[in-house]
Amino acid sequence: MTDLLARTAALIDVPSVSFAERDLADLIEAELRSSPWLTVDRVGDNVVARTTLDRAMRIVLAGHTDTVPVNGNASARIEGDTLWGLGATDMKSGLAVMLELARTVAEPVVDVTYVFYAAEEVAAEHNGLKVLFAERPDLLAGDVALLGEPTSAAIEAGCQGTLRIDITLAGARAHTARPWMGRNAIHRLGRLLAVLDGFEARRPVIAGCEYREAVQAVAVAGGVAGNVVPDQATVTINHRFAPDRTATEAEAALRVVLAPVLEEGDTWTLVDAADGGAPAIDHPLLAALIERNGLPVLAKLGWTDVARFAAHGIPAVNFGPGEATLAHTADERVERAPIERCFAALDDLLRRGA
Amino acid sequence: MTDLLARTAALIDVPSVSFAERDLADLIEAELRSSPWLTVDRVGDNVVARTTLDRAMRIVLAGHTDTVPVNGNASARIEGDTLWGLGATDMKSGLAVMLELARTVAEPVVDVTYVFYAAEEVAAEHNGLKVLFAERPDLLAGDVALLGEPTSAAIEAGCQGTLRIDITLAGARAHTARPWMGRNAIHRLGRLLAVLDGFEARRPVIAGCEYREAVQAVAVAGGVAGNVVPDQATVTINHRFAPDRTATEAEAALRVVLAPVLEEGDTWTLVDAADGGAPAIDHPLLAALIERNGLPVLAKLGWTDVARFAAHGIPAVNFGPGEATLAHTADERVERAPIERCFAALDDLLRRGA
Repeated sequence: MTDLLARTAALIDVPSVSFAERDLADLIEAELRSSPWLTVDRVGDNVVARTTLDRAMRIVLAGHTDTVPVNGNASARIEGDTLWGLGATDMKSGLAVMLELARTVAEPVVDVTYVFYAAEEVAAEHNGLKVLFAERPDLLAGDVALLGEPTSAAIEAGCQGTLRIDITLAGARAHTARPWMGRNAIHRLGRLLAVLDGFEARRPVIAGCEYREAVQAVAVAGGVAGNVVPDQATVTINHRFAPDRTATEAEAALRVVLAPVLEEGDTWTLVDAADGGAPAIDHPLLAALIERNGLPVLAKLGWTDVARFAAHGIPAVNFGPGEATLAHTADERVERAPIERCFAALDDLLRRGA
Repeated sequence: MTDLLARTAALIDVPSVSFAERDLADLIEAELRSSPWLTVDRVGDNVVARTTLDRAMRIVLAGHTDTVPVNGNASARIEGDTLWGLGATDMKSGLAVMLELARTVAEPVVDVTYVFYAAEEVAAEHNGLKVLFAERPDLLAGDVALLGEPTSAAIEAGCQGTLRIDITLAGARAHTARPWMGRNAIHRLGRLLAVLDGFEARRPVIAGCEYREAVQAVAVAGGVAGNVVPDQATVTINHRFAPDRTATEAEAALRVVLAPVLEEGDTWTLVDAADGGAPAIDHPLLAALIERNGLPVLAKLGWTDVARFAAHGIPAVNFGPGEATLAHTADERVERAPIERCFAALDDLLRRGA
């Protein structure tokens, strides 16, 4: 059997920070084109490969090719059965599983669509899967979808929604030697950040899965000059919310939380938002996958493109070898065993069906 | 008599935000060169004009040509005896007084040096007076110096010091859907800003002048990506301190104030610092100016280049028509009367001496 840990390491060593996925997309496209049973399409840096066997059902396997920015972990490093490196868990180990299935399963009993897409780790407007749904929805047709996002080889059902807000606090400029003549907008930010830091997250249970919300400042900016009391300070907030709320409802709830520190003259701008996805695990193909492999079923806390498939009527779950808690950390790493378990379970599903 | 309000308006209408003073320096240089009793030198965008009459004493009149960034007030507007516009008070009205003295006082009883210099409103390293002291100290020689900084036509003695600190708070990255796996450096900033906002300023009295210290955040920056708990957040702080402390002592005192919100792994960088200047008003020329015009003597809260002359052994004070509390505000303006009072007092000093 192919060494899937080494295959993941090779993918890590092709950098693919968001908006710079071209080299990795080129490599993936070239490899897929070498399997004659696959029809390969490319839209920008998004690559889709399909079998066309006229089976009764079609499974979509999808994964994003981009990573968050480098954090001192650009190069792959293997020790024993552990692989360190940017994207090890989110989600080049998932891509390695998909590529190996595409290369080796020439005659699946269900048709298979492999989707490799760009720009998942940035604002939703850039998302490669969104681009494909808009420009080539025919390429994404299917009965169920599985995304290789990190789940430690468990099934993560549904996902939380996400929204980003820019809030600009107002003040009044003055010379810093006489600050009482003005009002410091950056100082005002202190109270807002205290509210964010003290946010009490809801933890609702939906279809047996416990979700856990979060509100985090992800960017801050402000300042006029080194001797001027600043009249503006901006904070960008990312809110993750459980799928029992729409993005609109979650934004309204956040407004209530922050109302005590906002004033007339401040601005509130919704940057992007995506609804979550409810758990959807009753399709026969998903039920078979879960039962034959004894997979645990959990809530997905991160927003994933599961919600996009759900919005297009395709039941979808997350199922990938990485460990979600390590995603986006300097210590990102993945173990050999869950990669091999994911591969074996999907290989079985493609060869045996429901 | 020349309309000094209109003369100030004309100077406002030549934009000169820091690092873009060239047009204004060109205009000033050309005007000074048209007075045959002046020797004119230019170093970069700094212009110096001197009489060379071999008088027993020499007065230096100095003013900076730059302004802070535009704040919806780029164009001059006169209503009655009030002039609005960027630099009206800080300090194009002072420049108008200097230019008018240079144009009209051909045979002063003391030698006079007029210094027009760039880049006062930015980090000390760029300061035009600093450049002149380094490259052409001979041009700045004199017995006393008067700076046209805004004082409402009073004498402001000495000045407070200023220092800028960059503090970077550390955290640990994580995915924003699982923030408990990391530590949000921007959220930590909230506690630091609360300390700044609650800073209790000292107000020491020195030589009869009450000073008033201040600590202000003037810039803030942080963030990695829209879905990452940020591991760094930086705040720039401007501290104004009374002249009974050196910059080193003031920085040490600030460290004590902020120690409760700083941790190992955070960084503290001194960006720039300038000692204040003690009050120095016993020189016969300054004493005559104060006494003959009945001028009030007050503490200067802002740092000014008074401190640079003091460091070179030249007694110096601030004396300008603008109102200090209006400097760097959107409503910056100046009245006709204090401009005329400043002009008359200096005209008298140059023609009569001590």
